[in-house]
Amino acid sequence: MESLKPYVIGVDLGGTNTVFGIVDAEGNMICEASIKTGKYKTAEEFVNAGVECVKPLIEKVGGVEKIEGMGIGAPNANYYTGTIEFAPNLVWAHDGVVPLAEMFSSQLGVRVKLTNDANAAALGEMMYGAAKGMKDFIVITLGTGVGAGVVCNGKLLYGHDGFAGELGHVIMDRSEKGRPCGCGRTGCLEAYCSATGVARTAREILATTDRPSLLRDKPAEEIESLDVSIAAGKGDEVANEIFKFTGKMLGDACADFAAFSSPEAFIFFGGLCKAGDLIMKPIEESYNNSVLKIFKNKAKFLVSPLMDKNAAVLGASALGWEK
Amino acid sequence: MESLKPYVIGVDLGGTNTVFGIVDAEGNMICEASIKTGKYKTAEEFVNAGVECVKPLIEKVGGVEKIEGMGIGAPNANYYTGTIEFAPNLVWAHDGVVPLAEMFSSQLGVRVKLTNDANAAALGEMMYGAAKGMKDFIVITLGTGVGAGVVCNGKLLYGHDGFAGELGHVIMDRSEKGRPCGCGRTGCLEAYCSATGVARTAREILATTDRPSLLRDKPAEEIESLDVSIAAGKGDEVANEIFKFTGKMLGDACADFAAFSSPEAFIFFGGLCKAGDLIMKPIEESYNNSVLKIFKNKAKFLVSPLMDKNAAVLGASALGWEK
Repeated sequence: MESLKPYVIGVDLGGTNTVFGIVDAEGNMICEASIKTGKYKTAEEFVNAGVECVKPLIEKVGGVEKIEGMGIGAPNANYYTGTIEFAPNLVWAHDGVVPLAEMFSSQLGVRVKLTNDANAAALGEMMYGAAKGMKDFIVITLGTGVGAGVVCNGKLLYGHDGFAGELGHVIMDRSEKGRPCGCGRTGCLEAYCSATGVARTAREILATTDRPSLLRDKPAEEIESLDVSIAAGKGDEVANEIFKFTGKMLGDACADFAAFSSPEAFIFFGGLCKAGDLIMKPIEESYNNSVLKIFKNKAKFLVSPLMDKNAAVLGASALGWEK
Repeated sequence: MESLKPYVIGVDLGGTNTVFGIVDAEGNMICEASIKTGKYKTAEEFVNAGVECVKPLIEKVGGVEKIEGMGIGAPNANYYTGTIEFAPNLVWAHDGVVPLAEMFSSQLGVRVKLTNDANAAALGEMMYGAAKGMKDFIVITLGTGVGAGVVCNGKLLYGHDGFAGELGHVIMDRSEKGRPCGCGRTGCLEAYCSATGVARTAREILATTDRPSLLRDKPAEEIESLDVSIAAGKGDEVANEIFKFTGKMLGDACADFAAFSSPEAFIFFGGLCKAGDLIMKPIEESYNNSVLKIFKNKAKFLVSPLMDKNAAVLGASALGWEK
């Protein structure tokens, strides 16, 4: 077996910025640089700018012969085809299929793999984070949306078409009261547990009670998920009720996920988790109350240790080691 | 690599009968024999009887040196440990952990693997049935309970503890109206789509309408799932409404399963499927109506072709080929 080269390139391709980092086998980021994702009109222009941005980083670590591969985490990315498909938030990819892996690969002369952001996060946890040594776990990302990366038997679940792990879109409320979701359906987990979902829960709960709350210091329509975290941290009762509601949704959803893949751990990632036990306790309690008996008190509920460590770049870089 | 021996032993261990069969690599059952599962008070007695039953079959195909391995499909079976754990319907295993794989292996001198019935069915479909050549699919068994075997990337999903694939116990109705399930919780898929679930739906629908129906020929409490199939086959409107309700539950559940593992096909197995399109059409329609857009009209909905072919023995036997 040929031995691995010492570095990989990790790329976190987001709607605003695209960050390139050189990472070693221990998960240390050696150097990094970024470009503005939305500044470019076409995929060609974006890739050219990306190549110009990353080349000096590659030179810094000794040239392309020191690079094992490159991994990109991006919205609407398809692992199987190496393409970005109809990504609503990317100007140069919103109405077509962009063969991004091949475009970077041919210019840089390294192997390039692509996956979606949540899958990249799961790879990062497995190589460098809370899932080291685990073979079965689920990473749930709580951000603008709710995403997931599912690892079974040591491998990311891609499914038949590369789109497995859309756990933000399991249905939590099938009644006519299900909340509208960005996907066009109603009752999805994401409609309750994304940042906007939590803000909406806040407005709903504030409207149905006249209990005092720090959250009343702002006009209701300006409340954000972060305000709820801050208020909950100060012991605000209404804010904690919002977290209990959100935690129950997540715990109940995880109970269904356990029936599916029986993971060793659920690892949470994203702004909401910074509230720590205030959100994690309700999730875990609700899970153990509602899960099938054989799964009770077995799964770990963890917060990602990578959140403040360029996790998205690290996660994507993990893909760079794949043959 | 050592070449495989020509035969495996498949064992379908059910609550009433345990069937042993010798199977070749093409899935032909060479010979079979059975014992009464419940006739034995202890696991030792059961295994001794099983060994006596299977030995003549082994001799018939040329002795144990012709046998690659033995696979057992059984309730509450754990693949990882080779044990049956607290199986409510097995006298000799209902309050303990029985190391069944090891017990058979030491007496027969062959490698023995154990898995639950639905997982065995999934292996059978992959080797001999509707899932030949597929790497991502889900088998859903509709019987006394609702079970599932999930295959991802060509491998059965076992999860951290061996209990993955309990898809009969995802929650379809989280409201206080959720039906009680045998597992002690409410609203499980199994409470609606098992044989008893379908019979209950029949009683509920008959009670809320005075439309004529063939199902009224029997006292309501005696209606079985098979009566619904027969009446639906004769064009009975109420029976078809029952199938539509059941199909909607299954289709909606499959939409959530697609968000999880994005399978190429859902393969249904069990008495209810014998109704063919009467049940399969409502499942597929409801799935395509409710699934996330990226999955629409992609998955196949199939009825197992193995149902009348000793599928349980064939499925279990597939495990006998595993190294």
